[in-house]
Amino acid sequence: MSKGEETRLMILQRSAEVFNRKGYSGASMSDIMQATGLEKGGIYRHFTNKDDLALEAFDYAVSLVRLEFQAALKDKRDAIDRLRAIVSVFRAMPDGMPVAGGCPVLNTAVEADDTHPLLRDHARRAMDEWREYIVRTTVKGIERGQVRPEIQPEELATFLIATLEGAIMLSKLYDDLTHMNRTVEHLQTYLEHSVKA
Amino acid sequence: MSKGEETRLMILQRSAEVFNRKGYSGASMSDIMQATGLEKGGIYRHFTNKDDLALEAFDYAVSLVRLEFQAALKDKRDAIDRLRAIVSVFRAMPDGMPVAGGCPVLNTAVEADDTHPLLRDHARRAMDEWREYIVRTTVKGIERGQVRPEIQPEELATFLIATLEGAIMLSKLYDDLTHMNRTVEHLQTYLEHSVKA
Repeated sequence: MSKGEETRLMILQRSAEVFNRKGYSGASMSDIMQATGLEKGGIYRHFTNKDDLALEAFDYAVSLVRLEFQAALKDKRDAIDRLRAIVSVFRAMPDGMPVAGGCPVLNTAVEADDTHPLLRDHARRAMDEWREYIVRTTVKGIERGQVRPEIQPEELATFLIATLEGAIMLSKLYDDLTHMNRTVEHLQTYLEHSVKA
Repeated sequence: MSKGEETRLMILQRSAEVFNRKGYSGASMSDIMQATGLEKGGIYRHFTNKDDLALEAFDYAVSLVRLEFQAALKDKRDAIDRLRAIVSVFRAMPDGMPVAGGCPVLNTAVEADDTHPLLRDHARRAMDEWREYIVRTTVKGIERGQVRPEIQPEELATFLIATLEGAIMLSKLYDDLTHMNRTVEHLQTYLEHSVKA
């Protein structure tokens, strides 16, 4: 990796956390300068403007979450095991894993829905990927007799993601993991008793 | 109502919508001036600063939601009917009812959790009120034989609120009420089949 590529990655890492904690509007270029230790010119050598940096930092944050999913799903073949593994990745998000500030998709969705169509589109694409994975896993699970045939894959994806993202919000609002832990237990029971064939 | 009180209420109404759509950081005083048709001085005659206005506008938005709850709960005596009525109020939130921009508590919680302790405290107090209402309704429902005795009231409150707030986020992210409608149906079925005695 060249020195320039290294600097670019460092800027993405540090600014992803700043944007995820403070939001796109709340994070100033001076926050980014402070977090990276660079002057404005050093940042603008790698990114055209704040928008460009915010979009790339968001995608970088999502790629960290993707890596967590891949690690949790490794070696899981059964559909219910896979769905439980996805739930387990969300469990750590209020605690800042893998990105401080909670779930980047939740934070960006809530901020950008009424204000920033480009950021919103990036959030949609990240959410599409999670929903599609749950749908695909559920469809395969039904085919293989691991999931009850009456389960609607799209509905299950909406329900799991809505509940987990809402639980991140509650746990971060109260700075109390109880809300996330209760929700995870509720969903694991639901997967074992209502979804598993 | 005096002319001054009328102006104050108008500022709260208009700025509650601006803050709910754009967020605290994203909403500028010029946005507020444009929405109210007032000069900066006219706004600062009624509110000390942007923080003061944001906190009062948030509480005003929450009071609009409270009125929706009160209307939906009027004449409902059975615990399951009351819980279903709460779900029905959330159903309209992605569509901007009663405040454009979605649920003010969700929006404020996600923005303020890492950045603005005062706003976060107001969001906590609003959320406390909703959680406590669900807990109290469930406890009474168990006493009166309307709710299964094995239901844990605190867990039910976390689960219902997390799922509904997450569904608002999804429906607003995709500008598609399908996510909210699926979630409401899922929760109504859950209340009838798993919570009702």
